[in-house]
Amino acid sequence: MIHVAELIQRKRDGEELPVGDVAELVLAYARDEVPDYQMAAFCMAVFFRGLSGAETFALTDAMIRSGETIDLRAELGRKVVDKHSTGGVGDKTSLAVGPIVAACGVPFGKMSGRGLGHTGGTLDKLESIPGFRVELSHQDFVAQVREVGLAIIGQTANLVPADKRLYALRDVTATVDNVSLIAASIMSKKLAGGAEAIVLDVKVGDGAFMKTLEDARELAETMRELGRRAGREVVCVLTDMDQPLGCAVGNALEVREAVHTLRGEGPPDLTELALASAAHLLALSDLAVDESEARARAEQAVDEGTALQAYERWIRAQGGDPDEAALPTAPVVREVRAEHGGYVSRIGAVRVGVAALRLGAGRATKEATIDHAVGVVCRRKRTDRVEAGDVLAEVHARDDTGAATAAAEVLAAYEVGDGAPVERPIVLEVIA
Amino acid sequence: MIHVAELIQRKRDGEELPVGDVAELVLAYARDEVPDYQMAAFCMAVFFRGLSGAETFALTDAMIRSGETIDLRAELGRKVVDKHSTGGVGDKTSLAVGPIVAACGVPFGKMSGRGLGHTGGTLDKLESIPGFRVELSHQDFVAQVREVGLAIIGQTANLVPADKRLYALRDVTATVDNVSLIAASIMSKKLAGGAEAIVLDVKVGDGAFMKTLEDARELAETMRELGRRAGREVVCVLTDMDQPLGCAVGNALEVREAVHTLRGEGPPDLTELALASAAHLLALSDLAVDESEARARAEQAVDEGTALQAYERWIRAQGGDPDEAALPTAPVVREVRAEHGGYVSRIGAVRVGVAALRLGAGRATKEATIDHAVGVVCRRKRTDRVEAGDVLAEVHARDDTGAATAAAEVLAAYEVGDGAPVERPIVLEVIA
Repeated sequence: MIHVAELIQRKRDGEELPVGDVAELVLAYARDEVPDYQMAAFCMAVFFRGLSGAETFALTDAMIRSGETIDLRAELGRKVVDKHSTGGVGDKTSLAVGPIVAACGVPFGKMSGRGLGHTGGTLDKLESIPGFRVELSHQDFVAQVREVGLAIIGQTANLVPADKRLYALRDVTATVDNVSLIAASIMSKKLAGGAEAIVLDVKVGDGAFMKTLEDARELAETMRELGRRAGREVVCVLTDMDQPLGCAVGNALEVREAVHTLRGEGPPDLTELALASAAHLLALSDLAVDESEARARAEQAVDEGTALQAYERWIRAQGGDPDEAALPTAPVVREVRAEHGGYVSRIGAVRVGVAALRLGAGRATKEATIDHAVGVVCRRKRTDRVEAGDVLAEVHARDDTGAATAAAEVLAAYEVGDGAPVERPIVLEVIA
Repeated sequence: MIHVAELIQRKRDGEELPVGDVAELVLAYARDEVPDYQMAAFCMAVFFRGLSGAETFALTDAMIRSGETIDLRAELGRKVVDKHSTGGVGDKTSLAVGPIVAACGVPFGKMSGRGLGHTGGTLDKLESIPGFRVELSHQDFVAQVREVGLAIIGQTANLVPADKRLYALRDVTATVDNVSLIAASIMSKKLAGGAEAIVLDVKVGDGAFMKTLEDARELAETMRELGRRAGREVVCVLTDMDQPLGCAVGNALEVREAVHTLRGEGPPDLTELALASAAHLLALSDLAVDESEARARAEQAVDEGTALQAYERWIRAQGGDPDEAALPTAPVVREVRAEHGGYVSRIGAVRVGVAALRLGAGRATKEATIDHAVGVVCRRKRTDRVEAGDVLAEVHARDDTGAATAAAEVLAAYEVGDGAPVERPIVLEVIA
């Protein structure tokens, strides 16, 4: 049996721990044999000392072994691909990527999470669709992926329970921001979910967890290495999160924008990211196509309407009404106008996110409920030329007071300057 | 109300925290409103980032305010002095210092602890005296100090409860060894105990918590600063713990050696340390004597037998039998002999301590019971000249097997070399 206090001390003093000890620590923690206070001290020691590649993999692997794993290949008889985003403001990419990939004949069965923060997670966004059910039994999930080609559901309770417990602990002990712990948390869920190839969208910038390209690169490389050790293919796309992704921030607003994107009428940045992500997934799939052919097929699915059809089949299969008109709308819409002319040089993603959160689009605490209708729509994006009085954004609110507060916040998020700012692509880097 | 996760994060990131926040954290922890896991993460952040003088004092002061405090000056009408040792192998100094100080007319009322480790604490040593009671009511304690001039008892339950809880947590989360946390733990108890002047014996070396003179100096200065901020006088003596103090290691053996020292027949190092400590205490007391006069009075108390008389009165007052012959003895005594001639260049204090612990003289776990009779007596000390076959030490054991194991351990603790090693005084430095 491991001596936990001694392990903590050895990590504290900068030692690389035997992988067997790391695994035993995690498994004992999951069995409730190691108390939270020792795990909290361990995580803080890890914050300062880091984990080696071998230690990080041992942690990830033990977290996976703490619960059930899913083998979709065995159940579907197909190579299964998956995507994950580290999260940002206005990130509704999965809602567009899933239908594009499914339309191209590659099964897409994804388990997703709820959001804590600015706006909801993918599940919250989907729940803004009337009737949509995010909880399916394992059998129904697999059957839907087989028959419809696409399902997105909530994570089952017994998938990586150690991560659930550890993440909740890290959240209240200031031990979230360590690259190894973040990578282990994300990858344990992806690997336990059974995907053989994974596209990871690592957000970079003001509205993301990783503020700099260097930090994002480190996280991407750590996750890719975990995938390599587990025998899975991993492609990381590092993408801009200095401004909100697309225009819409808020649950029903984002679903609507995803539908527009599937129709070929989405904002350029979201459209590009959805097509690029879908292309990486198709290239990794059992279609046996190269990147350029994969990209062409993704574009074709949008152009020919098969992606939109896949979306509608999917939403109906999970009990929802795919009609845009069925989505809830907010009673108050207030425009935010430019005070002077110039170029939009910056849209602070965090500020827009906070405005949406205050409107009710996100959760400040785990118990809070979400108002699916409210949010912000950024009508102008970075590098756009505006005149004084032009509409910069819209605030969708429950009432006038909320609208006024959010409008002021959104206006403050916009910086309008004299010179035309340099264009920044949505995909900053691909690490394959 | 403080936001604990945010405080942890600010400390983690190297910020100096507002003293009010530190105090609220500690008091909320003592009230059970902050969970152990957050406190453990905080302590680990403190391990890496340290605490400023102001933060350390806020921590100490809040720990004191978590429970009752004692005002012996008000109850005795005298200035009260106290001593504390950071602990080491063979440290029975208090058993000699108390009677010397009392014999000189200065009241000495001390609350002490039990030991976890090589040998017992002062209370465990006293309990090897048949009949001795370490638990007195507060009234009886004060009455005994007033009438007999001397009492040593167990710490009352409600004195600095936050420290009790925090220390137990630090012990299992590898967050013991931080100078601010150690200083706050020691000083909170001394300050809450009401002493106006305190002599702190900071041990340095192999058998001590502080391995180097620099570390010991830092701890001493941190504790002196805490005393200054609390308006108390503090003198720190930094003393050698590279070899066991005196000769005896083990509870009854140490009591016997303390009695010998009071009779003027103790080992030179213990005698010197007892007299020096007593002199510092007398000089700080309301006797209004300088250091050299204080030293003269301490020596006189030993020479004239008044210190020994004070010891006997004290032991009887607490129900014990002061007769040396009443102390328990071990059934097996085995000699450890030198394998070759030379000078004793080193006696590893930790190894001797571990030998005593294995014999049963100490506690490996909190629940373990102590065998008061067993232990080790180092007949030769550092710089002593020995011939092959000379007795280096004696092992006092419960049985032959235990004796043999301990004898091998003690022999390994002795290093006998060719050249005469440099003499090292017992008192290395005084920080006043």
